[in-house]
Amino acid sequence: MKKVTILDIAKELNVTFSTVARALNDHPAISAATKKAVRETAERLNYRQNKIASSLRSGRTNVIGVIVPSLRVTFFSSVVSGIEQVMNANGYNILLYQSNESLVKEKKGIETFLQSRVDGILASITTETTDYSSYEEIIKRKTPLVFFDRAIDQLNISSVTINDYKGGFTATEHLIQQGYKRILHITADREILIFRERLRGYIDALRYYGLPVDDDLIVKGDFSPEFGKTVIKEARLKNLEYDAVFALEDFTAMGVLQQLQEFNVKIPEEVAVIGFANESFGSLVTPQLSTIDQQTILMGKEAAKLLLKLKKAELTQEEKPEKIVLDPLLIVRASSRRK
Amino acid sequence: MKKVTILDIAKELNVTFSTVARALNDHPAISAATKKAVRETAERLNYRQNKIASSLRSGRTNVIGVIVPSLRVTFFSSVVSGIEQVMNANGYNILLYQSNESLVKEKKGIETFLQSRVDGILASITTETTDYSSYEEIIKRKTPLVFFDRAIDQLNISSVTINDYKGGFTATEHLIQQGYKRILHITADREILIFRERLRGYIDALRYYGLPVDDDLIVKGDFSPEFGKTVIKEARLKNLEYDAVFALEDFTAMGVLQQLQEFNVKIPEEVAVIGFANESFGSLVTPQLSTIDQQTILMGKEAAKLLLKLKKAELTQEEKPEKIVLDPLLIVRASSRRK
Repeated sequence: MKKVTILDIAKELNVTFSTVARALNDHPAISAATKKAVRETAERLNYRQNKIASSLRSGRTNVIGVIVPSLRVTFFSSVVSGIEQVMNANGYNILLYQSNESLVKEKKGIETFLQSRVDGILASITTETTDYSSYEEIIKRKTPLVFFDRAIDQLNISSVTINDYKGGFTATEHLIQQGYKRILHITADREILIFRERLRGYIDALRYYGLPVDDDLIVKGDFSPEFGKTVIKEARLKNLEYDAVFALEDFTAMGVLQQLQEFNVKIPEEVAVIGFANESFGSLVTPQLSTIDQQTILMGKEAAKLLLKLKKAELTQEEKPEKIVLDPLLIVRASSRRK
Repeated sequence: MKKVTILDIAKELNVTFSTVARALNDHPAISAATKKAVRETAERLNYRQNKIASSLRSGRTNVIGVIVPSLRVTFFSSVVSGIEQVMNANGYNILLYQSNESLVKEKKGIETFLQSRVDGILASITTETTDYSSYEEIIKRKTPLVFFDRAIDQLNISSVTINDYKGGFTATEHLIQQGYKRILHITADREILIFRERLRGYIDALRYYGLPVDDDLIVKGDFSPEFGKTVIKEARLKNLEYDAVFALEDFTAMGVLQQLQEFNVKIPEEVAVIGFANESFGSLVTPQLSTIDQQTILMGKEAAKLLLKLKKAELTQEEKPEKIVLDPLLIVRASSRRK
């Protein structure tokens, strides 16, 4: 069977090729009656639009690309759920790309999305992202872009982030209010803004409550269950005194919890533990892990809404980056509840 | 600045438009020397290929689409890691789409991938997928397709699945060998092949070891931590006697574990618990959860390799579906180790 083309529909209706093409693309210059006739004829002749060619013309794909460091982290997969809720409700489909914290992969992901002519990109950068050229390319191509959680401040792009400073302050304040005095903080040795902010919140909370800031209690390293265990083992070797641990994120906190239990340290009676990020396992472990919730679903929804706004602004030329900062929520569970 | 086109390169080199276009697309009819000259001129003139138009001609995008029910489940995000490892090493980029167990969304995802002209699709169907038309469309369009974990048997498509029957048998056999005799099995009330197979394995293991199959010990329902708790609560109300629980998957097993602990039942002394899927939280909870590992990374790698094979076969017309069935691995942890 010969494939039906736009020309066949044009002949059938005795109109021009261009009229049919524009009618199929819902062009405002074409009357509603003509559009109806074209659509009906197209259907009758069993015409299949070449959507990729059509998207080349209209420049619209109804696809939004989302770049995440890793979907194996509950935090990110949960933000994606929020994004999907808003975007699906607005007729967009979401495609996901994992950078796996690699700058090279991140670049490939952005290239893939730009090649697929996505209608917008939502991104959280990798811990390696020091070269911003891929993101500059997105901006140059006028593809709407919104950052979530990890943004590049220098690019002046709309973003939804969490107030990590406040999260660090709140976690530390909670431990102080529960009566803990020597709070060990595990932070990253790499320069990652969110972790630096949590550290700053920790230090300010100690100062605010008149507690000394002891450099021995600030341990820098990796973030993983293994590193959490290592910190507790080394603290024991060094005879380090501490009565609480505030880990930069939940996986590390989990390692701390496990190693303390192996040493038969009572949690929270002898040592309290609090993490950050409200990973799903936190409520499944014993004792349940206190943490800081980052309002992931809300973050995803807000980021999606910002992108939709940008897409509107695109039409009216009113682009103005908007930066939303969400407040973290303290979640007190058994691992730090002494009172 | 005027955009550099293929025509500019053609003029510069005094060759035809078609020669330049074919050279840029690595056409075999063009000599290596011409290709080199075209590439160098293109670079010198700062020519940017319109990749989408180019993919329209070549029909290649180097993008593989992966459809998964949910990336919030460790099982699937881990399979995706395996897929990425093989595909990235072979020069493909992976785009992901979550169906969230919805047939409507699954259809949209497939449509999106077909519109984006992906070079192949790897898919795990939803629990709702009873209408196969979207998958038939993939086949009709000759886009290579491979199923992983959840396949549609009727379509005769290459797949990598796990031997769920064997998994169910192995989990039950392990409990029997640890001395447990009244093993409660939680299974799904919906018709889902993998769960039906695990149930079949459970029944056959009991028979193999000469234990009675008691219908009261087979509880059908949902799969979630909440349902796991409900089962244990109801078993208590009914005074049901059991000394072990084999849950259809880990989240449900986790609910069982928590409810038993709330009832101060000793695990594994009084009641053993085993799950299925080796979710990441299993080794983080107390007591650590025994489970069945499904060789997720291997599953992803094998599925990716099958797709690469299909892509080769496409060229030589030797398409032949291949069905790989992986063996599950028993992971014994504290929740079921009595001996």
